Amino acid sequence: MRVEFGSLSNIADGAIELSSFFDPKNAELDSFLKKVKEIVESNEVRRLPKIPKGTRDFGKEQMAIRGRAFSIIESVFKKHGAVGLDTPVFELRETLMGKYGEDSKLIYDLADQGGELCSLRYDLTVPFARYLAMNNINALKRYQIAKVYRRDNPSKGRYREFYQCDFDVAGQYEKMEPDFEVVQVLTELLDELNIGEYEIKLNHRKLLDGMLEICGVSSEKFRTVCSSIDKLDKQPFEQIKKELVEEKGLAVETVDKIGSFVKKRGPPLEILSDLKNVGSQFLENEGSVLALNDLEILFRALEKSKAINKVVFDLSLARGLDYYTGVIYEAVFKGATQVGSIAAGGRYDNLVGMFSGKQVPAVGVSLGIERVFTIMEQLEKERNQVIRATETQVLVAVLGNDLPLAAEVVRELWAANIKAEFGTNKKFMKQYDRAKQNGIPWIMTIGENELKEGIVLLQKVENKEEGFKIPRDRIVEELQKRLNASSS
Amino acid sequence: MRVEFGSLSNIADGAIELSSFFDPKNAELDSFLKKVKEIVESNEVRRLPKIPKGTRDFGKEQMAIRGRAFSIIESVFKKHGAVGLDTPVFELRETLMGKYGEDSKLIYDLADQGGELCSLRYDLTVPFARYLAMNNINALKRYQIAKVYRRDNPSKGRYREFYQCDFDVAGQYEKMEPDFEVVQVLTELLDELNIGEYEIKLNHRKLLDGMLEICGVSSEKFRTVCSSIDKLDKQPFEQIKKELVEEKGLAVETVDKIGSFVKKRGPPLEILSDLKNVGSQFLENEGSVLALNDLEILFRALEKSKAINKVVFDLSLARGLDYYTGVIYEAVFKGATQVGSIAAGGRYDNLVGMFSGKQVPAVGVSLGIERVFTIMEQLEKERNQVIRATETQVLVAVLGNDLPLAAEVVRELWAANIKAEFGTNKKFMKQYDRAKQNGIPWIMTIGENELKEGIVLLQKVENKEEGFKIPRDRIVEELQKRLNASSS
Repeated sequence: MRVEFGSLSNIADGAIELSSFFDPKNAELDSFLKKVKEIVESNEVRRLPKIPKGTRDFGKEQMAIRGRAFSIIESVFKKHGAVGLDTPVFELRETLMGKYGEDSKLIYDLADQGGELCSLRYDLTVPFARYLAMNNINALKRYQIAKVYRRDNPSKGRYREFYQCDFDVAGQYEKMEPDFEVVQVLTELLDELNIGEYEIKLNHRKLLDGMLEICGVSSEKFRTVCSSIDKLDKQPFEQIKKELVEEKGLAVETVDKIGSFVKKRGPPLEILSDLKNVGSQFLENEGSVLALNDLEILFRALEKSKAINKVVFDLSLARGLDYYTGVIYEAVFKGATQVGSIAAGGRYDNLVGMFSGKQVPAVGVSLGIERVFTIMEQLEKERNQVIRATETQVLVAVLGNDLPLAAEVVRELWAANIKAEFGTNKKFMKQYDRAKQNGIPWIMTIGENELKEGIVLLQKVENKEEGFKIPRDRIVEELQKRLNASSS
Repeated sequence: MRVEFGSLSNIADGAIELSSFFDPKNAELDSFLKKVKEIVESNEVRRLPKIPKGTRDFGKEQMAIRGRAFSIIESVFKKHGAVGLDTPVFELRETLMGKYGEDSKLIYDLADQGGELCSLRYDLTVPFARYLAMNNINALKRYQIAKVYRRDNPSKGRYREFYQCDFDVAGQYEKMEPDFEVVQVLTELLDELNIGEYEIKLNHRKLLDGMLEICGVSSEKFRTVCSSIDKLDKQPFEQIKKELVEEKGLAVETVDKIGSFVKKRGPPLEILSDLKNVGSQFLENEGSVLALNDLEILFRALEKSKAINKVVFDLSLARGLDYYTGVIYEAVFKGATQVGSIAAGGRYDNLVGMFSGKQVPAVGVSLGIERVFTIMEQLEKERNQVIRATETQVLVAVLGNDLPLAAEVVRELWAANIKAEFGTNKKFMKQYDRAKQNGIPWIMTIGENELKEGIVLLQKVENKEEGFKIPRDRIVEELQKRLNASSS
């Protein structure tokens, strides 16, 4: 922008304007100064450190919630006899290659600083398979709660570093035993976390392949057709139809036939009996017959374990990952189709064999806990609960500059396993406020008088009038007595 | 090497040797075939997947030990009112730069795949300071148990991915309060982990600087001289002297004077009173006087908290990291000088300010848990204890191909919070062996007879003769009764 000066009189006018601008009574000067202040401050903010996009810190309140979620999840896993496993956060790059199809582009690589080429783990399933193959283990029921890494677009509100909670059963078992247990575990997890109504969509890879075969899709197109079908929870069938006909070259009749199948979703045993009806084309397809027999056993077991009402048999569920070979499933919140899945999994009988040449059948589920945290945080807020981040039971307040005295008293409490903090500020109110702000229930004060008398003054923080004079040699038992009384 | 053929007769001799070599009775053929077999097999082994150098998996037994160690450590941290914090495994590269001096070369970088430049965290202290600065937090007592990454030489038996357990107190407190608590926490950690005798070497950065000043070292040489001094626990003084005189250009008298100081180590209050003796040059050095006053308060407090006998005041302790400004310390196992430290830390009052410009004083300690795991594993082995990896209380053994029946029974147990596994193999002995091998104490059998009678057979695995016939509708209470009896 260029400022043009016309005549001298205009300059004089400008001078008058300028001087009035700097008049402290002028509202424009005020807003101008505000803007300058804003710019200076935003520069200051910009100088503050940042964390990488798509990552987050867990502060004390989040850690408290997370701790509770993990403890629920871990106790479900342990109830089912699973053992823990931990693997490195990065794997040799060759371990991850060829396992995730198109999604491989989202893998984080470590820089080549000499030595081996490594990448951050993308999930916990491939490291589990690598662990089994490397150690020649034929059977293992394991859980793992750990962070995984995906260079996804964080603008979608997704994290690039996030937790997965995995439960997998590897090994030869009687038919459908582990498949039943994994789906059962998934319902127990979501029930115990108590974060809302959900349903588990379930399908079978072999049934899906059989369906496409019946519809006349050639086998080399199975995968690309599946990835279109997988979008049916987000897009209308007409749009998918267009994609399948125009982009993927299927005949209109083929797509319509697929359309009539993928509409089938509902209570597992009903849909199953529908598919097994006399005259059903699935009965002539070998893979489908295997799948339907698997599913019948699974559904009968889930019926008896009272989990069947959480399951929806859904022929449109396709799941992207290459390695699935049998049952597949995905848990979603009810009524919230756009939210995506909170958990997913399936059977993968060939993955371990990709590493060692020796097949170890396996089935598992992975719970994405980030969404669970968010919901739990919201629920806490709605309940208006204050989340106490610490468990401190007493503050030892020495009124004056005597750290050795505080050290002596507070150590006695620590040695008796009492959760205690201490302070040596000479102002009682300052120490009292600290206890109050942190929700510490008791304060134990030692001032000049108490020191002379050989006592401490023990007070409830919420009701500081009521104080007990306790002899110095009885502080542990007198405090414990009161802590036990208030906790029972 | 070239093979030379002499005469024809030699060739004939060779032919005879060759044919006798292939004689099946020939021992050389045997050993030759063994070697071939070895090579083939080792190639097969080589085809198995590997994990990156310097990393490790934690299998079920290691996870059980690790879980115990973490729970001890966490309960000490919580007893002192610390809150948890978790930060991303990688940080922006600029966050880590300029914090570790020479060791920066050991930082793992992520590959540049577009977007921000990131590196794996090298410790938990710098991310803690970044977190405080970014969120404008002035005071926080936090702990963090997490993996850190260093491209160190794994041949030394060191890991490149390893756990650190950090406890830090940031904020303005009365003098030496947090310093006392951090050292106290360190003694509690090592006492409760119960992994052997240890001592905590302790010194003060300002005292160290004062000492060098007194000896006539110019301030720009402080750091390089310190890094020589820091090697005194591994090398004799004569060698360090040579380095200081020949490589670092110090005068012989200067080095001898340093030598007379760094020999000083022993009970804190004794050494302190020695340094504060009338005529001590430290009393004329401003920084040293500050340091000696700090240390006096600290030692008096540690005396009262009964931790002083674990502390050795050691003027040769220098610690490499740039960011320390006050007390520094390092815990080592007694009698094992070569093992290196198991924990270390100190005061760093300027680190947060490096990010935000606003100083937040802080002090902390970091426990390297890898060595603790190793010692705990050895102790378990010596005690010859079998570490049970699962806590399963009962195996539900349905004798036959009836998954729905197993599902119905085991769900009842799970719903009552009983840790249970199940099997549907028709052979009782196979299921019994599974229970025995996994240390599961009870087996609940349902065969054809039990099914007809509407009962289950409940047996102790270690003593399977004794069986109880339990009506199907009373399995939970009858089992719980027996579990409670055996646990009390």
